[in-house]
This record gives sequence, structure tokens and C-alpha cells, in this order.
Amino acid sequence: MDRVDDLGRAGLKIVQRAGVAFSMDAVLLAHFARVKPGECLCDLGTGTGVVPLLIAVRGAATVVGLELLPDLAAVAARNVRDNGLSDRVRIVRGDLRTATLEGLGMDRPFDVVTANPPFRSPGSGRVSPDGARAIARHEISCTIGDVLRAAGRLARHGGRLYLVYLSERLTDLLTAMRSVGLEPKRVRPVRPFPGGPAKLILAEGRRGGRPGLVIQPDLVIRDTSGEYTPEARAIYGLGP
Amino acid sequence: MDRVDDLGRAGLKIVQRAGVAFSMDAVLLAHFARVKPGECLCDLGTGTGVVPLLIAVRGAATVVGLELLPDLAAVAARNVRDNGLSDRVRIVRGDLRTATLEGLGMDRPFDVVTANPPFRSPGSGRVSPDGARAIARHEISCTIGDVLRAAGRLARHGGRLYLVYLSERLTDLLTAMRSVGLEPKRVRPVRPFPGGPAKLILAEGRRGGRPGLVIQPDLVIRDTSGEYTPEARAIYGLGP
Repeated sequence: MDRVDDLGRAGLKIVQRAGVAFSMDAVLLAHFARVKPGECLCDLGTGTGVVPLLIAVRGAATVVGLELLPDLAAVAARNVRDNGLSDRVRIVRGDLRTATLEGLGMDRPFDVVTANPPFRSPGSGRVSPDGARAIARHEISCTIGDVLRAAGRLARHGGRLYLVYLSERLTDLLTAMRSVGLEPKRVRPVRPFPGGPAKLILAEGRRGGRPGLVIQPDLVIRDTSGEYTPEARAIYGLGP
Repeated sequence: MDRVDDLGRAGLKIVQRAGVAFSMDAVLLAHFARVKPGECLCDLGTGTGVVPLLIAVRGAATVVGLELLPDLAAVAARNVRDNGLSDRVRIVRGDLRTATLEGLGMDRPFDVVTANPPFRSPGSGRVSPDGARAIARHEISCTIGDVLRAAGRLARHGGRLYLVYLSERLTDLLTAMRSVGLEPKRVRPVRPFPGGPAKLILAEGRRGGRPGLVIQPDLVIRDTSGEYTPEARAIYGLGP
């Protein structure tokens, strides 16, 4: 059975696949991404379309969500329709490893590419028996290199890439971004609790950008008493 | 004229070259470095010997400070003598690009290597007319690659490298560390003020280490009213 979740901030209702609640990582990523009005954006491996929906309600002109799995792509398309965003968001079923601008119905490259790629290399950690969940978490259908090569192919020169990734793999991420010409320009560690190690990293790259990285202050999710911090509440749309 | 500065915490008196106060970066680096009793350490480009002195008073067995410029090496040697640390610290004049264990008087590789390398590529920013200052800040006598290759050559397998570097060059740093087999294991951004961007990054690498990075909570130097934070006061030896 499908589940409906509410993203309070935007008034969006988002249907999830049964048992696969959308990851809050996607909400963090959508918040981190800077998208100017009129820009066009591609979300690689969009799942149920959380990132496209959250960004589209902020006013981007054209958002394309690319998803490999037919079931998830169908849910994403339904979410777009149900939230009245069909004029701005298009869901395409396809493999990011072979995606082309033409295949995505574009006559020009994207200004912005977003991705919440699988974090774990195939040998690390427990692989979920749920195929969709396994593909989202482990580098089964694509590696970080595949995602970055696709982003490099689909973004215009000077275009931006936004990613959420596992902080313990920051070296892999920065090295791979640079190797495909997406120069890291901004990172923000996400820390579940103050004082603890970061778990995730939000990263911005620029295609053809010059070296020079800004390390932003941490995004801390919960305070020492376990409550969401004001910033996390605002991002998650939980009200003050 | 030379100047005497006091490092309160350790009771050290450190002579600086006229006009070249030691950089607080060295104090942050010495604090960040984990050195176990009995280990031997090499500080590359030691300047006036601040890092060796601060670490030696904590109890490392053998510390070698390598410095290219004869004047600075002489000041460093005097600082070692005047602080009664000659049994533990040795200053060697030489070029890290050609340094060998034999040349440093060692019969085994170092457990730990530290470096506060020049931050700026030769074309960036104003180059100081003071030769010593220019060499310390700009990649004139050595690049980050030279420093890392030297560290890789001088450290034992499993040995640790500690560096302080410009945070805007984090991608350069992590990429170069990995390329010489010094896998990044821990980084800590240093932020002059809360909420502002990081200026420096403290980094730990391990020779032959497996990938996997911990991003530690920021070290914030001053609070919003401009006062040192309690952590900065403790590191700088300023008392509570």
C-alpha cells in the first residue's frame, strides 16, 4: 500500500512507495540547492520526485526528474500530477548512465543538476532485500562516478551540481567531482547532534569552475536534548 | 631584533624572527596532532620550531624539526636549547624535497609527520617582500605536493600526517593526500567566527590507510562578541 506524507513547508502531499518513506536527505538537498527563477534543472535518480517537487514550488521553470525504476517513476509522476505541478515538472523513466539531453526532451543543457546518489559501495554494510531500497542506498545500478559523469554531460558550462553524500566519503566525492570537471565550490556538513561527527555532506560543484571551496557552518539537526534545531525545523517545514 | 613570545599553556618562551610573529596556525596544528608517548615525529618546514616545542613538552620521545632557511633554523635551535628540550628535539637545516631518513639521523621511519605548508599558489595574492615570510606563505620553495611526497617518504606504513591548510583548498589537499597514499582520515574546519565560512582546515592522514573520513565539529575561534571561545582559549593557553 502506498503512503501519503506531508511536506508541511510547501503544502505538498507526496505519495511514497509502501515501506519506503522518502529520505529526509532529499529535503536537505532541495533546501541546499540554489536555483534561480527561470533555470532548468535535472534531478538524477529522483525516486518519488521529492527534490523536483520541492524545488518546483519555489519557482524553477523546468524540472526533469529521471528515475530508473518504473514503479518509482510512476509514483513520482502521480505526485507531480496530484500537486498540480505538471506544467513545470516532468518525470522521465531512464538510466542516468545513458541519459542524453535529447532523450530527456531538452534542446539545451541544464542550468542545475541535483542528485541524492547511492552512498554505499557494494561491499559495505547490509544490502536491503528490497530492490528499490537497495538501489537507492548501494552502488548497484550506478556509482558516484556514473552520477557525476551524467551530471557533467547534462549540465551547461558554468552550471551547478548539488549532491547529498556520506561525509565519510568526502575524499571520494571531491576527487571524483574534480576528475569530471565539476569543481567543488561549497560544502556543508550535516551533523545529527552538536559535537558528534558529521553524517552527511551537502556539496555544490560548478562545471568548469575554478578551484576554491567554501566550507559552510554545520547544519545541526538536533540539539543536545534531542529536539530539532530551529534551522532543521525550518528546512523540514515543521513550523517554529 | 628578535622578539620573545610566550606560549602560556606550556610555559614555553619562543623567540621569533624580527617582524615574524609565529602563526597561531602552528599552535592549532600542534593541538590537533595526536602523538603517543614514545613516538617519533618530524615537523616539515618547522620555522622557529613552535610545533616541535609544543609537542615535545607533551612527551613525544624524538622530535625532528626540518627547516630550509638557515636563519630560521638557528632561531629554532636556540628555542629548543632555551626551553631545555635538547634531549627530545633536534633541528635540522635542509630541504624537505630531498630529505631522507638517513639525512635526518633516523634509523627508522617516523610515526608522525606534521606540516604547516605554504597555502598560496605562486600566482595568488600578494607575495611578501620578506623572503622568509613569502616562503612560509606561498608555494615558492615547495608545493603541497612536495610536502606530501616528503611526508609519504618519511612516515612509516600506518604512520600519521597532520596538516593545517587553507580551507578553500580542501579539494587540492584531499586529492593530493590520496594520490601519495596518505589517506585522509579526519578533518576539522577552523572558523574565525560562528556562522562565517571556515578559513583553515586541520587534516589527519594515514599512510596506507583505508578510505573513511571523519568530519569533526568546527573549531570556532571567537564568539559573536569577538571574544575567544573557551576552546580557543584553552588551545592558545590563555587560561579560562
